[in-house]
Amino acid sequence: MKIQNFEANSATPVEMEGVTGCQVRQLINDSDGAPNFAMRQFEVAPGGHTPEHSHPYEHEVFIISGSGEVLEGETPRPIQTGDAVFVAPGEVHQFRNTGDQPLKFLCLVPNAANNAQFAKPECDQ
Amino acid sequence: MKIQNFEANSATPVEMEGVTGCQVRQLINDSDGAPNFAMRQFEVAPGGHTPEHSHPYEHEVFIISGSGEVLEGETPRPIQTGDAVFVAPGEVHQFRNTGDQPLKFLCLVPNAANNAQFAKPECDQ
Repeated sequence: MKIQNFEANSATPVEMEGVTGCQVRQLINDSDGAPNFAMRQFEVAPGGHTPEHSHPYEHEVFIISGSGEVLEGETPRPIQTGDAVFVAPGEVHQFRNTGDQPLKFLCLVPNAANNAQFAKPECDQ
Repeated sequence: MKIQNFEANSATPVEMEGVTGCQVRQLINDSDGAPNFAMRQFEVAPGGHTPEHSHPYEHEVFIISGSGEVLEGETPRPIQTGDAVFVAPGEVHQFRNTGDQPLKFLCLVPNAANNAQFAKPECDQ
C-alpha cells in the first residue's frame, strides 16, 4: 500500500510542444505495482494550457482545485473544482487555466500511455 | 466528452456485508465509453467504513475531503484530504471514517471489477 499527499513530492515541468505553464507529478504507476493504469496530477498556471491534441487512449480527469476550460474539438467547455471529465480515445482536447489560481487536476491513463509519455525511460517528453 | 460535478447525481447506498454508512456514485465507466477503468466516488459517514476485504484487482484512490484511516492488513494508517492511496491486488484493506465530516474519495478500478460489483446488471450488491 502506498499513501502519499499529492503535493508531497515536487512537480516536474512538462516540456512538450504546445504546452505552457504545466507541471506533472506521478502519484501511482506501474513502478508502484499498479497493473493497469496510472494516476498523475497536473498543475497548470494561470494562462497556461496542455497541448491541443488527440491520442488513441482515454483520460479520466478530476479537478482538484481551480477553474478553466477544456477544449472539446473546437468548443471550450467550462471546468471547475469537483468536476469529473472523461476524454474518450481520439477526442481532440486541451485543458486551459482561464482563472487566477493554479488549475490542479488528476489525469489517469493506461500504463502504456503513461510510460510512452513520461515515466520510462527518463526523458523530458 | 463528459463533464460533470462529482455530486451532480444522487449517491446510491452500498449494500454489502461489512459496510456501514457508505454511498457510491458512478462518475466514469464503460457506459460512457471508457475502455479500461472506472472512476467511482464513495462517501463514508462519520463512524462508517467500507468492508475489510481483499480482491484480485487494485484500487487507485484519491481523498477529496474528510479524514480517517485505511486498514493495511491489520495496521490502521491515517488518511486525509489530498492523499493518493494505492491498494495493490490481494491486499487486505478497509476505509474508515474516524472524523466528524463525511469522508469523500475517488476509487478507480478496472471495468471488469466495477461491473461485477456495481454497474451491470442493476442490483444492490
